[in-house]
Amino acid sequence: GWPSLSAPPECDGQGLPLLLSAAATEIWGGANLAFAMAAETAVGVILVLQAHASEELQAQYLEPLASGEWTAAMSLTEPQAGSDLSTLRTLAEPDPAGPGNAWKLTGRKIFISWGDHDLSDNIVHLVLARTPDAPPGTRGLSLFLVPKRLSEGDGWRDNDIRAVSLEHKMGIKASPTCVMALGDEGGARGWLVGELHNGLGCMFTLMNHMRIGVGLHSTGLAERARQLALAYAAERIQGRDTAGRPVAIIEHTDVRRMLLTLNALAHAARGVAYTAAAALDLVHAPETSAEVRAKAERRLGLLTPVVKAWCSDTAVEASSVCVQVHGGMGYMSECEASQIYRDARIGPIYEGTNYIQSQDLLLRKIARDGGSALEELLADIEQAAAALPAGSLLHTTLPGGCARLRSATRTLLGRLKATDAAGQVALAGSLALPYLTWLGTLCGAWQWALSVNRVGAQSSAFAQGVRDHAEFYAAQVLPRVAGLAAVVEGGGEAVIARAQPAAFA
Amino acid sequence: GWPSLSAPPECDGQGLPLLLSAAATEIWGGANLAFAMAAETAVGVILVLQAHASEELQAQYLEPLASGEWTAAMSLTEPQAGSDLSTLRTLAEPDPAGPGNAWKLTGRKIFISWGDHDLSDNIVHLVLARTPDAPPGTRGLSLFLVPKRLSEGDGWRDNDIRAVSLEHKMGIKASPTCVMALGDEGGARGWLVGELHNGLGCMFTLMNHMRIGVGLHSTGLAERARQLALAYAAERIQGRDTAGRPVAIIEHTDVRRMLLTLNALAHAARGVAYTAAAALDLVHAPETSAEVRAKAERRLGLLTPVVKAWCSDTAVEASSVCVQVHGGMGYMSECEASQIYRDARIGPIYEGTNYIQSQDLLLRKIARDGGSALEELLADIEQAAAALPAGSLLHTTLPGGCARLRSATRTLLGRLKATDAAGQVALAGSLALPYLTWLGTLCGAWQWALSVNRVGAQSSAFAQGVRDHAEFYAAQVLPRVAGLAAVVEGGGEAVIARAQPAAFA
Repeated sequence: GWPSLSAPPECDGQGLPLLLSAAATEIWGGANLAFAMAAETAVGVILVLQAHASEELQAQYLEPLASGEWTAAMSLTEPQAGSDLSTLRTLAEPDPAGPGNAWKLTGRKIFISWGDHDLSDNIVHLVLARTPDAPPGTRGLSLFLVPKRLSEGDGWRDNDIRAVSLEHKMGIKASPTCVMALGDEGGARGWLVGELHNGLGCMFTLMNHMRIGVGLHSTGLAERARQLALAYAAERIQGRDTAGRPVAIIEHTDVRRMLLTLNALAHAARGVAYTAAAALDLVHAPETSAEVRAKAERRLGLLTPVVKAWCSDTAVEASSVCVQVHGGMGYMSECEASQIYRDARIGPIYEGTNYIQSQDLLLRKIARDGGSALEELLADIEQAAAALPAGSLLHTTLPGGCARLRSATRTLLGRLKATDAAGQVALAGSLALPYLTWLGTLCGAWQWALSVNRVGAQSSAFAQGVRDHAEFYAAQVLPRVAGLAAVVEGGGEAVIARAQPAAFA
Repeated sequence: GWPSLSAPPECDGQGLPLLLSAAATEIWGGANLAFAMAAETAVGVILVLQAHASEELQAQYLEPLASGEWTAAMSLTEPQAGSDLSTLRTLAEPDPAGPGNAWKLTGRKIFISWGDHDLSDNIVHLVLARTPDAPPGTRGLSLFLVPKRLSEGDGWRDNDIRAVSLEHKMGIKASPTCVMALGDEGGARGWLVGELHNGLGCMFTLMNHMRIGVGLHSTGLAERARQLALAYAAERIQGRDTAGRPVAIIEHTDVRRMLLTLNALAHAARGVAYTAAAALDLVHAPETSAEVRAKAERRLGLLTPVVKAWCSDTAVEASSVCVQVHGGMGYMSECEASQIYRDARIGPIYEGTNYIQSQDLLLRKIARDGGSALEELLADIEQAAAALPAGSLLHTTLPGGCARLRSATRTLLGRLKATDAAGQVALAGSLALPYLTWLGTLCGAWQWALSVNRVGAQSSAFAQGVRDHAEFYAAQVLPRVAGLAAVVEGGGEAVIARAQPAAFA
């Protein structure tokens, strides 16, 4: 029933804010990423069907997806079509043998998470396919709902979509990653979702949801890394204090540094991801004013690639720090740290690689509006920085961090304007990922500033912990932006364009 | 026969320079880290026996170790004694039933790589143990040679040392990591190596060798990551160029950026690790003058922790970049990229964690001689930088990089002098690891500068590749030092000492 949290009451959902389901998504991700993916896909598919499917399809599919009785799968990738969906070949033709609006699909899909399993009575595949008369490229793609089982009279029969192979992966092993064959026996029955040839547009409803989902799951992994490391460090006795007494390793400064890093990163990732989820609530809430909605849409668009990429990179880092705190034990399969290390590595790859996120950030979310959504964000960060206690390190360094990013962005925007499409893509390829990491690290500092401002002058241990962790972030995490800024400002695109990687083969 | 490369002719070794065996060690590490560890341990144990064992033991054990007929194992760790060996409990007592100089050992050792297997006729364990009359702590440890099989008359019998469990690990799965029981049937027979109570001193001969070995193996992993990514990027078709033609992903700028990163890191790691191996040759060569030997010893001491820690961190990064170049395929178990990602992660943990390396660097290798070995290294880097082509980015930035590290080091040395032992350990815990990473990144730039100077004005594609890769390192890798320097200079040790990581539990 967990997918029902944010699902609408019409399909027996609880209609709760997305921010609340975001917190649940984080917790599921930290508990078991492989399992969490199934529920998260169902939530995303509910969004797509609500926005784009016929009332008939909605009536049949929404309720069992919201209740968790049925699961869902995104069926996009084909062997020749990964990051570039324009070469998809799966074919959808009108089905003369079926009901009037039915289609039959034939093709092969790979890397389909939760593509087949016995955990639910039915599996709802959203399949990107090409119709016979479609234009080439991504503009010729349409979206189809293809269930694993079809209702027929009083019973059910298997549809012509089958898992023909299971992938063996380094992590998320409990998630069945399938090669799916559609139409080996004549055609998988499906129904069109949304307009013909607007499949990619419909799928982006799901993709944007899943990108926030990756950020939330990654936050959950970072949080779990934090919990595991803290528990182990408090119990593992090794080494002595200066008085010669054996101590738990949490007493060693370097271990404290690692634990504080984990705390600082997990909280920062959470804040950034929840901020995007809250913007999504504002976008969807009927009572939101047009002005507030427009701002929330800008913020959501800007933060979505940051949430997906920065939070997933952060989870990879956190999982590695967690392994290090465990020492040799962290390398053992029986230690959850080693599982998190393997699981977290999928985050920067799927739902659009982290480079694709950074390209989306720079060329679409920032360049297209001339940097105004970014300016709005920087103003919010500066406002939070200004309200910080005057003596704090974060108060000292955060405004300068904003100013340097603003200046570098203006320079970048000028250079993007002065070049052609190929030049823009080359510039993004050289700099967009460090640029995104820079912005993400700054947003993490923003979240710490907001937390410090929220606890104000309270003297509780928790409030002091918030202030100390914010200072730690300022002392040991935020300085990374100096290196990232130097890369972005220094360029390097000339040498990247010129250098032959194979000159060293 | 590979361990024989650098073994002395007296034991049927080839007596070749260590620099040559270093190159072979790198290649083995890249081919299969798990297997490579067996040969590398044998080479290290040969060094220990040559330096510390009786002629009788040398005569019996060196030749089969050098030929590879027998393998070796380092038996240090116990459940309660990992990074801190002072609490070792394995007991060694004179053996009244054995030959006059024999000992019998009882105890449990864990995490023993290649502790038992059927690949060789015998396994030579170097075991750290405590004698009955020994002082407490590490000063009471002695080193013993404990073979798996004992020669008896014309035949062999099993010694009382047995693998009682095998660990399941996330990587290096082909390396049997054993729990070893010594003396379950009365006592494992062993022989003292070196002086009584100087076990740790003798073991450091092996540890220092293995630390360089980890750096070389890690270089091999980075090199293999580079090879795999380059081959995949050249063959995987995805996306289009601006003219709309399908292209191999090596044509995409971000993929080029990743490939150049891999090339730049692998070459830098190799240069730093080989420099340490070359210093080891100078230390050992009889024809080395006293002055040259003293300088080589300083350089080797300074670089050993950098080679172990920076190269292993670099391999972890390279393996992750390699996975990313492969996209979803990189996450599949059948893809070697995923194996390298799992294998590389052991590097920062074993043979002394990377933090222990950084503490050794700062508190021993730099503070103890007041920074003079570091100053000597910086002078060499500056000399290489000065010889670079005047227009190059590396020529512009490398001298400033040296000056900033020199200045930060002087400040750090002053602060270390002004505090007590506890304060020194706290300062190291807060800053030593980013300090080591800073120095390693700078040494990587030094190696690129040397390579550029070596190819000079040559116009070959290879020479141009060297110049381009050096510029890439200057544009995209060296700038990281700005962030690391800001962490080291900014301190943060006050907040690390004050903050309670559990305040967020």
